Amino acid sequence: MTRSLQLTADGQLKHLLTLDGLSPAILTRILDTAESFIDVGEREVKKVPLLRGKAIFNLFFEPSTRTRTTFEIAAKRLSADVVNLNIAASAQSKGETVLDTVSNLTAMHADMFIVRHAQSGAAHFIAQHVEPHISVVNAGDGRHAHPTQGLLDMFTIRRYKGAFHNLRVAIVGDVLHSRVARSQIHALTTLGVPEVRVIAPRTLLPTGVEQMGVHVFHDMQAGLKDVDVIIMLRLQNERMKGARLPSAQEYFKQYGLTPEKLALAKPDAIVMHPGPMNRGVEIDSEVADGPQSVILPQVTYGIAVRMAVMSLLMGPAQ
Amino acid sequence: MTRSLQLTADGQLKHLLTLDGLSPAILTRILDTAESFIDVGEREVKKVPLLRGKAIFNLFFEPSTRTRTTFEIAAKRLSADVVNLNIAASAQSKGETVLDTVSNLTAMHADMFIVRHAQSGAAHFIAQHVEPHISVVNAGDGRHAHPTQGLLDMFTIRRYKGAFHNLRVAIVGDVLHSRVARSQIHALTTLGVPEVRVIAPRTLLPTGVEQMGVHVFHDMQAGLKDVDVIIMLRLQNERMKGARLPSAQEYFKQYGLTPEKLALAKPDAIVMHPGPMNRGVEIDSEVADGPQSVILPQVTYGIAVRMAVMSLLMGPAQ
Amino acid sequence: MTRSLQLTADGQLKHLLTLDGLSPAILTRILDTAESFIDVGEREVKKVPLLRGKAIFNLFFEPSTRTRTTFEIAAKRLSADVVNLNIAASAQSKGETVLDTVSNLTAMHADMFIVRHAQSGAAHFIAQHVEPHISVVNAGDGRHAHPTQGLLDMFTIRRYKGAFHNLRVAIVGDVLHSRVARSQIHALTTLGVPEVRVIAPRTLLPTGVEQMGVHVFHDMQAGLKDVDVIIMLRLQNERMKGARLPSAQEYFKQYGLTPEKLALAKPDAIVMHPGPMNRGVEIDSEVADGPQSVILPQVTYGIAVRMAVMSLLMGPAQ
Repeated sequence: MTRSLQLTADGQLKHLLTLDGLSPAILTRILDTAESFIDVGEREVKKVPLLRGKAIFNLFFEPSTRTRTTFEIAAKRLSADVVNLNIAASAQSKGETVLDTVSNLTAMHADMFIVRHAQSGAAHFIAQHVEPHISVVNAGDGRHAHPTQGLLDMFTIRRYKGAFHNLRVAIVGDVLHSRVARSQIHALTTLGVPEVRVIAPRTLLPTGVEQMGVHVFHDMQAGLKDVDVIIMLRLQNERMKGARLPSAQEYFKQYGLTPEKLALAKPDAIVMHPGPMNRGVEIDSEVADGPQSVILPQVTYGIAVRMAVMSLLMGPAQ
Repeated sequence: MTRSLQLTADGQLKHLLTLDGLSPAILTRILDTAESFIDVGEREVKKVPLLRGKAIFNLFFEPSTRTRTTFEIAAKRLSADVVNLNIAASAQSKGETVLDTVSNLTAMHADMFIVRHAQSGAAHFIAQHVEPHISVVNAGDGRHAHPTQGLLDMFTIRRYKGAFHNLRVAIVGDVLHSRVARSQIHALTTLGVPEVRVIAPRTLLPTGVEQMGVHVFHDMQAGLKDVDVIIMLRLQNERMKGARLPSAQEYFKQYGLTPEKLALAKPDAIVMHPGPMNRGVEIDSEVADGPQSVILPQVTYGIAVRMAVMSLLMGPAQ
Repeated sequence: MTRSLQLTADGQLKHLLTLDGLSPAILTRILDTAESFIDVGEREVKKVPLLRGKAIFNLFFEPSTRTRTTFEIAAKRLSADVVNLNIAASAQSKGETVLDTVSNLTAMHADMFIVRHAQSGAAHFIAQHVEPHISVVNAGDGRHAHPTQGLLDMFTIRRYKGAFHNLRVAIVGDVLHSRVARSQIHALTTLGVPEVRVIAPRTLLPTGVEQMGVHVFHDMQAGLKDVDVIIMLRLQNERMKGARLPSAQEYFKQYGLTPEKLALAKPDAIVMHPGPMNRGVEIDSEVADGPQSVILPQVTYGIAVRMAVMSLLMGPAQ
């Protein structure tokens, strides 16, 4: 249902809710569009007038300064007007429903909602109910998806590796709780990566993860062997204190990416991380700041990818 | 005193603090100006350069994401620079007086203050002390007034009913605690509505409300009979828990607007609500989302009305 | 180290971290540039396009609505895009380091960080680690420095007194805890003020303050005699409750600036205060609002000074 919901009748992207079900052509079109925005961030005047006078609402039911900032910057570089709404603290507490909040903002002539919510399916739910001229971007919903993160990861891989069809990619860490991992696996598979691996302790893997088309490894030695791309996942603080893991130190020892473990991958392998990093837990600083790390370029590309998504969703005018 | 404070010597609007005392000519001028802004929200580029380079401060001593957003959007559509100040959490806690805060912002060359405060008279107090070139808009002060809400209600009625002189209007609910109701009654009377009714339990009516020129009803059956416009008021959560009311269920049974009660009004009656709604308390969802509801158009018109107020207050340049 | 850090190899200002070590030529250049921005605030359209498309981040690890507002307004008058980040409540709580936060924002093509932090040296630390094209402005770090406040004080003195070489300046109050006082003393000395006095109880003076080139007084009668400029410092609320002071009333009696004490200074002496004021503690309202007070002009000049700093730091383009 989501698949069709985010496309128009003629196959154009209308909402971005998940990467699941998007065709290689659409993914590639987003990446190509992002490519055209890369240089905007490097100009003397970092702005294009594409979305001038458009009203974009950052509708954050769950606070995330970092994610909100990337969308705010992307929108401003497109010359849109951005309004930040931290909903947790406001109307919700007055008993208004999410849909009433959305209807009200729609009545103010909103053009796009960037939605962040702790519950899986929230952005999807909103997209089902908005008026036809409005687009919804999922900026993270529960454990479900975080598609712009997945897209910027694909963009980064393509930039550094040139293509997808000849790659071996390892995703390492807390796949179970990661909305990013799901988005990544879908996108990697769709774009033709022949071998996607996940490396994690059993307690941090969803049951049936193999059915997503990935190879499962429980130790780094085997899992990292000859990979081209390593995507480290963030280990949420709350997991470290939970029963699923012995301790942060023990986790680092087994699954933390150190120079030694990195040496198992191909010599030109790149290291990625969605941030914010727990240095010394899932990744060693020497790797995070080392020559194979492309963690900061990911952030840079994230702006271009979000600009691409926003401008594509705004439709035929572009 | 308020009456003269908000007008210049030659009768132009200088501040908007209350609708009480404003002439039909001034109210009509605001509504006419709002009419000219309606199409801005529907344009490809939702902006006019009228207030470019003006500094508008959202001075919110009481948080209200919803109201702040409407003013922020209106200001941005006029190309003004908007700065949001949530004062509750900042200078006030350092012991600075309201007037020192205002003086400081004035010294930064503010052009307009949008003031929200839990205390009645706060915007009025500020308007008394600002420098002559600065305008103040009351965005809600205690139980006193919320004039832009009242204006957008008048705008909505005029849009749907064409005129005021032949209408019967009912205001339903917690008149006692409503700053909106006071603004509405003043405006309706001034604009020539021949019959304004209030419908509420005795405990939710201010003493002497009849002296405002309204007809008082305590039951919906009699009160809604043959009205053209029904304005539902929000029932604050805190009232429901208080001694003034039996229960939310009981309130809904007696005063909640259901399709059955709505049928008592004229067949083309419109239903209004300032939001946020308590569905199932003061209004049934079938009515709120039904064909006679103009609740979302109210929100749309609210932007145009606020643009009109801001541009009129900025004076002769427009 | 700080001294060289904030200058480029050819002596241009790269960061503004402290006034300590800045040459008279650089200080004068900032003040002259600020002079050229004074009229922008008085124009019909309060904007110049100097920094259009630049990304300025208000990086506030310690909340300060007032200071944040002045930088936000200055940046908007220069047409820059401003993003406000209240870090206390966000990434820091997810365990990200300050440098990782800064690196991430840099990767989003930031041009300038305005840094406020409770710890002395924070802005300095960040400036040491940012990429070469980025500038850092210290908006207050612990007890260390608040250089734009110091600069706006110098600008105010020059505006009212014309020059520095013939002045007697008294700084009154809690020098010990004041980051402003340090910045002021450095700037006054550098700009050639022949006599800088500090007036305070022993408990509110740092040890060895004389080595900064100031004359120390413990009573107002002697200290204010024949001065041209009186700079009152804010007495933090927490000090009043501490063991260092008998009581706010007692402090006011001894060190509060009353009309009587002001009469000891030269008849044309000006009175300054960085705000927010504690009326009736360090200053009497009659003085604060009186003809010799230049406290509100300080605020006005603060915008011009911050515009000057931002545009100078952006480098050769200006």
